[in-house]
Formats: sequence, C-alpha cells, structure tokens
Amino acid sequence: MDTAELTELGQQLRVDGVRASAAAGSGHPTSSMSAADLMAVLLANHLRYDFDRPAHPANDRFVLSKGHASPLLYAAYKAAGAIDDDELLSFRELGSRLEGHPTPRRLPWVETATGSLGQGLPVGVGIALAGKRLDHSEHRVWVLCGDSEMAEGSVWEAAEHAGHEHLDNLTVIVDVNRLGQRGPTRHGHDLDAYARRFQAFDWHTVEVDGHDVDAVDRAYGEALSTRGQPTAILARTLKGKGVEAVQDREGLHGKPLPDADEAIAELGGIRGLRVRVHEPPATRMLHSVPTGRLDLPRWEKGDPEKGVATRDAFGQALAALGTARGDVVALDGEVGDSTRTEFFAKDHPDRFFECYIAEQQLVASAVGMATRGWVPYASTFAAFLTRAHDFVRMASISGAGINLVGSHAGVAIGQDGPSQMGLEDLAMFRSVHGSTVLYPCDANQTARLVAAMAGLDGIRYLRTSRGESPVIYGPDEEFPVGGSKVLRSSGGDRLTVVAAGVTVHEALKAADALAADGVPVRVIDLYSVKPVDRATLRRAAEETGCLLTVEDHHEEGGLGDAVLDAFTDGRPVPRLVRLAVRMMPGSATPGEQLRAAGIDADAIAASARLLVETAVVP
Amino acid sequence: MDTAELTELGQQLRVDGVRASAAAGSGHPTSSMSAADLMAVLLANHLRYDFDRPAHPANDRFVLSKGHASPLLYAAYKAAGAIDDDELLSFRELGSRLEGHPTPRRLPWVETATGSLGQGLPVGVGIALAGKRLDHSEHRVWVLCGDSEMAEGSVWEAAEHAGHEHLDNLTVIVDVNRLGQRGPTRHGHDLDAYARRFQAFDWHTVEVDGHDVDAVDRAYGEALSTRGQPTAILARTLKGKGVEAVQDREGLHGKPLPDADEAIAELGGIRGLRVRVHEPPATRMLHSVPTGRLDLPRWEKGDPEKGVATRDAFGQALAALGTARGDVVALDGEVGDSTRTEFFAKDHPDRFFECYIAEQQLVASAVGMATRGWVPYASTFAAFLTRAHDFVRMASISGAGINLVGSHAGVAIGQDGPSQMGLEDLAMFRSVHGSTVLYPCDANQTARLVAAMAGLDGIRYLRTSRGESPVIYGPDEEFPVGGSKVLRSSGGDRLTVVAAGVTVHEALKAADALAADGVPVRVIDLYSVKPVDRATLRRAAEETGCLLTVEDHHEEGGLGDAVLDAFTDGRPVPRLVRLAVRMMPGSATPGEQLRAAGIDADAIAASARLLVETAVVP
Repeated sequence: MDTAELTELGQQLRVDGVRASAAAGSGHPTSSMSAADLMAVLLANHLRYDFDRPAHPANDRFVLSKGHASPLLYAAYKAAGAIDDDELLSFRELGSRLEGHPTPRRLPWVETATGSLGQGLPVGVGIALAGKRLDHSEHRVWVLCGDSEMAEGSVWEAAEHAGHEHLDNLTVIVDVNRLGQRGPTRHGHDLDAYARRFQAFDWHTVEVDGHDVDAVDRAYGEALSTRGQPTAILARTLKGKGVEAVQDREGLHGKPLPDADEAIAELGGIRGLRVRVHEPPATRMLHSVPTGRLDLPRWEKGDPEKGVATRDAFGQALAALGTARGDVVALDGEVGDSTRTEFFAKDHPDRFFECYIAEQQLVASAVGMATRGWVPYASTFAAFLTRAHDFVRMASISGAGINLVGSHAGVAIGQDGPSQMGLEDLAMFRSVHGSTVLYPCDANQTARLVAAMAGLDGIRYLRTSRGESPVIYGPDEEFPVGGSKVLRSSGGDRLTVVAAGVTVHEALKAADALAADGVPVRVIDLYSVKPVDRATLRRAAEETGCLLTVEDHHEEGGLGDAVLDAFTDGRPVPRLVRLAVRMMPGSATPGEQLRAAGIDADAIAASARLLVETAVVP
Repeated sequence: MDTAELTELGQQLRVDGVRASAAAGSGHPTSSMSAADLMAVLLANHLRYDFDRPAHPANDRFVLSKGHASPLLYAAYKAAGAIDDDELLSFRELGSRLEGHPTPRRLPWVETATGSLGQGLPVGVGIALAGKRLDHSEHRVWVLCGDSEMAEGSVWEAAEHAGHEHLDNLTVIVDVNRLGQRGPTRHGHDLDAYARRFQAFDWHTVEVDGHDVDAVDRAYGEALSTRGQPTAILARTLKGKGVEAVQDREGLHGKPLPDADEAIAELGGIRGLRVRVHEPPATRMLHSVPTGRLDLPRWEKGDPEKGVATRDAFGQALAALGTARGDVVALDGEVGDSTRTEFFAKDHPDRFFECYIAEQQLVASAVGMATRGWVPYASTFAAFLTRAHDFVRMASISGAGINLVGSHAGVAIGQDGPSQMGLEDLAMFRSVHGSTVLYPCDANQTARLVAAMAGLDGIRYLRTSRGESPVIYGPDEEFPVGGSKVLRSSGGDRLTVVAAGVTVHEALKAADALAADGVPVRVIDLYSVKPVDRATLRRAAEETGCLLTVEDHHEEGGLGDAVLDAFTDGRPVPRLVRLAVRMMPGSATPGEQLRAAGIDADAIAASARLLVETAVVP
C-alpha cells in the first residue's frame, strides 16, 4: 500500500476500534488508536500470514503484548477479511470470540493470551527461538508492546535473552504513547530512554514517528534487513490519536470514547478497506517429527541399595523421551546439574535451551515453543517456579501445553534451608485451571509419568525430590494419570495413610511398625495429585473409616486438600487428619527436617495410633 | 585498614568460609571466596554499622543478594565480633542461627531473607527508598549480587526503579566471578556488558578488579561521592580465589573444598583479625510516628442505593488510616485509579510510592520499607500479584510484615476477561506460611479489616472487588480476624451456605428464595479465609448437617478448602459441596459471568435444594 492508502487504513482501524468499544460499552479505544498506523503498515506491507491457514509453518507470528488494545487487533482482522463487521461489533459479549483481551482458545490467529503486561515479548522470544533453532524457518515474529509495560522486569529478561541469542527474526514495536493507565509513564515521549536500554541488551533500535506511515514502513524494512540482532522500533505516538476530545489526554484509559459518532466523523467515517495480506512463502512442513521406540530407563525393585533420586529418574527419562520423540525439547534455569536436564542436554544439545536464572523467560520460552507444536519440558527448583506464577496462569488461559518440572521439593532437601524448598508448589499448580499435578516417589514411577505428561493437555507439573529414595515399583508397573497405588492393605485396616513422594516411604515405615504392633493400616501412594483418584480414596474411606494425609508441603492447597476434593460430592465424608509442614524450617539434615516438620514415620505412626485409639487428634 | 590488613582480612574471610562449609559438609565456599576481598574492604573501611544495635536507624544496610555465599557473611560477622568461632562452625546445623541462606528470623543483622536470586537488589531499592523519602536518613544501602542473577528481570526492574528515583544512597556490588552453578554465565568476565546495562538505566558504574583491595576501596569511595545516581560496582573476580584446586574452575559450585586443610594452609592458615566496624553517626530516632484518632469512613446499611465497591472502601479506609498513623505508606503498580490507592496518594503524597507496572518491585519495595519499621500497603489487581509470588514467599521467610491488597478479584469483574481476573490469589496467599487472608463483602467490613491488617504479623492479604455491592453491615459492627458472620440462621436450617465477598450477596438472595420456599438455610460470611472460624463452621455443621461453599475463585486452594480445614481435627466431617469457578471464563457482564460459572444465587439455590432433597449432588 502507498502512503495515502496506509493513512486511510490507519483511520479505518481507529474507526473500527472506536465502534467495537462503543458497541461493548467498554474497552480500550484510545490505546488502540495510538498504534493504529503501526498496525496498518505492518498488516498491509510486511506481515506474511495466511489467515485461512493459521497453523501454516511459514506464517509470520504477531503478538499483541498490549492485549488491552484488542479493538485494534480485531479491526485488523476485519481489514484482513478474517472476521466480518457483525462479529467485530460482538466485542466483549458473552460467547463472542472477541474477548476483552485476545486468547488463542477462541481465535486461531492469536499466538498467546495477553492482558498481563510484559508477557508478549517473552513469549515472542520463545517463538523466535523455535523459529531459529527448531523450525529452521524464515518466519518472523512481530511483537507490539505498550510503553507502560517496559517497567516490567520480564521485558528486560526477554530482551537479554533475545540479544544474547541474536534473534534477528524478532521485532518489537513499542507504542510510546506516553500515557499509562493512571497518568504519564516514567519516560514520557523520551524514545531515547527506551532505545538506550534495548541497545544495552544488544538490540538494534530505530526511533520513529509512529504516525508517519512512510517512516514506519522504512523502520520495518530496517528491521527486516538487520542481521544478527533483534530490532526494537520505538514509535512516538499519541494516545487517542485523531480525535481531539481524547488525543494525548489523561484520564481516558480503558473507556469508550465520550461521543463515538462524533469521533467516527472526525476520523473520516466508516471505511470498507480490505487488505490483501502477503502470503507466507511456499514451504515444506518445517519440522517433521521422527518418532521411535521409547526405551525408558528401568530399575529393579530395591536396586541400587541407596535408592534413586526422582530428579535423576526424571533426567534419564527425559533424555530417553527425547531420543524417542523428535518434538520434545528441554529448557532449564541454569540448574540443569540439579534438575538433571543435563542428561537431555548432553544427548540432544540441539533441542536443549539454557535459559539462565530467568524463570519467567524459562516458562515463556516453553509457551512460545508450544505454539509451534513443540513439546517443552521446562525445569528449575520447585521453589523458583513461583517466580513464573503469572506466566503459568496466562499459559493456562492460552491453553498452552507445557510440562513444568520442579525439583528440590519440600523440607527433605535438607541443609539449604527454606528459600530453596518448594513448599507452595502443589498449591500453585493445583489452582491453575485444567492443570495436571504429579508427584512420584520412585524412579520407575517417575519415568512413566515423564512419558505420560507429553500426551496431556494444558499445564502439567511434575514434582521431583533431591535425595535418593528406594525403588519400590518394578519397571513394568503402570501409573495412569488420575490413578493411585495401594501399597499396604488388609481386610482389617483401621486407617488409611495417604502420601506422595518422599512421604510414601515414611508412610510405609510407619505402616510396618504399626502392623507389628497389631494396628494394620492401608497406605495409598497418591502420585496423581490432580486429577485425584476419587474411587480409591472413597473405597479406603469406607473400608477404614479414617484418612491420615501426610505431605512435604505447607498444609494449604497440597495433598491434603487434594484428598478432601474427593469427598465434596455431597456424600458422607470420612474423618480426616493432615500432617504437613506447619513451621518455618531452618537448616538441618533431610531426616532432621522431616522429623522437625512432623511428617516422618514416627509422626505418622503416632498420629495413626492416636486416631485409631481416640478418634480425635488434638 | 591499609592494603596489607585488608588483604589479610580477605584471606581470613576465605579461610573461615572454607572452615564453616567443611564443618557443615555442604555450602558454597567458592562463591564466598570470589567476594571475600569485596566484603573485607566494605566491612573494614566503609560500612557504618553497630552490631550491638542492629535496629539503629542510622546504620547502613547490607544485603547479601547472593545468599548462597552465606559462609562469607558469617565469616564477616565473626570478624566484626558479632558471632564467635564456635557459632561459625555450627553452620547449617539443626537449630543454628547460621542457615544455608541467611534469614532475619534468626539473625538480627540480616535485612531480608535471600537465596532466591534477583531479590536482594529489589529489596535494597525499597530500603533505599525508605531512607530517601521516609526516614530522611543518611544511611546507605549496600547490596552484594552475583553475576548469574543478573539474568533475572527483577534485577533490571529494580535498576529502572532506582535510576528513576535517583537513589544515590544505594550501591550494588556485582561479584563477576564468571561461573554460575552449572558453568559459565552469559557474559563471563565482560564487565562492560553489565556496565552498559546499568548505565542504560541511569546508574553510575565503576569497573574494578575485585581482588585489588585498593582499587575496591577507591570504587567504594567513588560510590559514596556520586550524587543523583545509584552506583553499580562491577568487580572482576575468580570463583574459589586463592586455592589453586578450585580457583576459576567449573563443576565446584555449592560444594565444600575437596581438601579443606590444604586449602586453609594455601590461604595462609587461620587468622584472628578483628574488625572495628565504623559506628553509624549519632542521630535522633529518625522517624517518629504521629498517631491520631482513626476516623474510618462510615456507610449506613443499604446506602447508597447502588452499593459501594469494596475497592472504594479500601481506598477510603487506607487514606483515613494514613491520616491516623504516620507510619502507614502505600504503594501501587500504576493502577491506583483502579485499586483506589489514589485516595491515599492524594491525601498523603509523601508516603505514596508509584511503582509503575512492576509487581515484583512493588512487593520488594514494601518488604524493604517494612525492614525500616514502616507499615506498607501494596496494591494491584489480584491477578497480577501472582507475578510477585516468589517475592511473597521470600518475604514470608523473612518474617516481613506487609499488607498486600488485590483488587478486581474473580469472574465478577465482567468484560475484561480471564487475564484480569484473580482466580488463584486465595490459593496463593493461603499457602504462604503464617499468612492472613481476608475477603470482605461490604464497605464497612472492608474498612475495619484494612485497619486491623496493620496490627498483624507476617503477610496479610486483602481481596477486593471491582463492582458495587450492598452495604449490609452497620458502621460500628466489628470483624475480628479469624471470625465470621452468621447472616441467616434459624432453628430449622437444613443446610449452611458459606460465602465470602461477592458470593455473600448471591448466598443471601438464594437463602431468601429458599426460605420463601420453606427451606431455611444458614448463611455464613467467611470474611476471614485464613485463619478460619472453626468454631462457627463446626457448629453450623452440627446444627445443619451439610455445608455448601461458594466462591469466585478456582475450586482448588480457596474458600472451599479453607472451610474443609476446619474439619481436619479427626472429628466427624459434615457433608460438603463446593461451588467454584471450574471453567475458563471469557468476556461477559458481571451477572453473566457469575451465572456462567455457576456461583450465582440461582446456582446456589439449585444446589441447596438438591443437597437437601437427595443428600447427594451429582
């Protein structure tokens, strides 16, 4: 398109954004208007995208990091012919695909859900990394950011990553409209302030008047011709551009225009321009997925004598899975020697991504790769995955299929102390919509679950332990997700102990001690914390009358709550007592930690005796 | 100290770090050895600190952001005479104050718990902000960081904040030893790479050989004389410096030295140097706290007709609290017009801190201010507090007393969609050790709880709602933390509905409809989600036989789980059914959202009828 057409298209996008917001009675038209010319030039002259085939491997990828500017995105979809005017005006209605903030669950052209600021660029980095190192595709990634979100550290974490990886297939466009939600941003229209920062992280930068369509066109061209560096285009714009009543004014964020009809007239009225978006280049399917036989590592029961750490089993199983499946990739937060992704890194260096100590980017990279069909496993200490909670939350909204593996769970890590102990991770991952939460206690179980995760939907979390534990299952045992294992059982069980991970072994010791004392108890290994095996728990409750849960996690939101979930169907609920970490641990050996927290075999046995004898634990 | 003495002191710190780690059989001596000279010069020549009076307002503040280098910190404490050699050698033992990573719960000289990397600088920024803008003190803040943690976005979020605030009382020292946990860092010994980044964020920078004690001394002097900017000292060091077997070698992170005796000999043996740390300047108590009568805002029952949003009540109450208490400060993540901290900002601009869209820094600033005795209230959308989960976790380990307020909770926000909905926040905050979780449904209740929070220990969370809700309590009603309110009750109640926040009003509507149909039900407003009112819930269970919980939150970890907590003492458990948000919401009006999620009055009434009639809900 030429200058006049681009200018007209920019106005059309503004008008349609104003109309959509007016129809909804809410939305962010002024934030859309500042970026309308940037979007017009990209859509008409640079984006290569087949709206009829959103999964086309050679499509460019566009991420609207400032997700509140959704009216602009939807106006662009209309201009490209992907949606019609009726649908545009369904913006924010119940059941409409056009949500307040765009999500790929509803719209096939959206790469990732946005609306929590500072996440579009990190995910874009993940997509660009996949393009460079996995897809070996020429597709480009364009990310449109707001200036307010430049305050998020995650933006600079991503900038660091992209600069270091020389992602010249990545362009970020910053819509510097100088106004945040409640007033001026830190840097106002000081484009240089942003440029200096991106340059420091080894980016190429271009400063431009974001309403000069020819200059914007040249800026995109400069980005396309830049080699070895990602490009940041810093665009000076005006919020509400084009409508005097709102242009560059405070106090109008996230509000429909006061007089939509007048604004539309001022913008030159409704237009019917249709953009022919450039086709992506013809291409073969870029990543074929060689799949072979899965040879999981195997351990015999009781071997080796000192046991196997589930983190070791995870690492070995992941490496084996990587051998069997060409679509499996691994990422780590610079602790691969602890999480044991180092085994995968050694066997499959091309599909291993070192994310350094940057957990938000770790998860965002996984989300970006998942959008391109890869099956990522991202690992760090369970405790440090809390750093990426908001990214996990948004990934769930995206419907992203990612595997997250947290090692060094619980007080059982020992001397390093509470900062390194995952004690909230089960609660965090259980509360994520549609998630799966797995917590193995043994090497063979771990290996099976690592393989099973790959085939699930949504966010899948595996919790691993630092120390060795006995191999209690044979290598051919199966562990369906949503299942459990009854490890001790008799007709006369007086109680059921429900455990997972490290506490399974404590529960078994306690059960054996109790049995020797003539108090038979059932033991359930609840390796699938979510979904939970309701049937087995219900049967145990009916047959033994009382449940005792024991977990190396805070008492809220973890195993105990998961067990209670099984009894919220309105039927009678068994008596239940929970053992969990209720104190603030310090440094001590693993055994001392379990004892101090009251979740070791002795504590289990003592609680069980009290429950069986008195029916009430104080 | 002169060059020779400083050099000796550095060697002593190394030796003592090696000894402590050898005694423990674990720890991070090599990470301590790289920074030993940096620490020696700071301790001997620049830090102003009275170890006998750690609360002294004019003390400088030192934060060991690379918390795993705790052997160095403890060796410094010994050199300063704060601990003796026996205690040094108790490192990492059960009950020792010298944990694997330092925490202020156990050691009075530690400002904030570290061990999750990238948090020391953000908290240091908070302390420096307090120094500049609240304490009006000359104390300085020194933060010792590792180079690996420079990959964390939170470091640059903090750098941006400190540069913008011209925090020339803040110095960060980066121990660039080039080796992370599993190998080389991104930038190795390229000091310039780090300097460029800090400069871009408007910092003064100094590059220095971190083992040249005179150069380090001059660098600290340069930091002290720099005005208007924070200073970053980039120090080139060697991991394991001074012991040939480990110096600058990979694969030795977090391990005691292979031969401690040989290493100690190579370092010149055990020394007994004692440092006389500079006293802080004589000073008055720097911030006296004027306390006046608290005039909370008051609403009459049923007024105004459209109701009051709890976020509005929060904003007004916080402003009133700020008037009564001079130690209350407020911080916001650039959404003060939504959270309503704008009222506080208007009334108390000197005690309001705009943190922009940077939730990690928002919480870290609050933690830093709390270390100096201030009572911070930090606010943003509930959904976006998940961004700071790891900071909240570490604040809990610190024992920090901070108030966090999350607005726009649940699907009830309406059209903005799931990215803006706090649906995991109750789970997140409940799982934090020692936390308090409050969720008011009415303006007067909100105001009371806002005031009550200030007097609690640990992490306190208040959840507020976007939309108006009826005023159902009088202005003199009291709401003790850990309590609840029985809003509907009769002798013949067939069931108890437990609700909080927005669902209280739905529960009341349902109860009235059910009562009209001859099905009396009890309604409990469980505004204190943690701690929970076990006695009232137990009584309701005994008297009505069955509980129905309803919450605008995912089903895991929220209100329903909190209610179940009340019944985990081994006594009989009532039948229980939970209504919660089980689907992924889109955009819709608030009423449509509650209906679609199955948590509105109709859903409550229907579930109640089914429970009463059939005793089982499918």
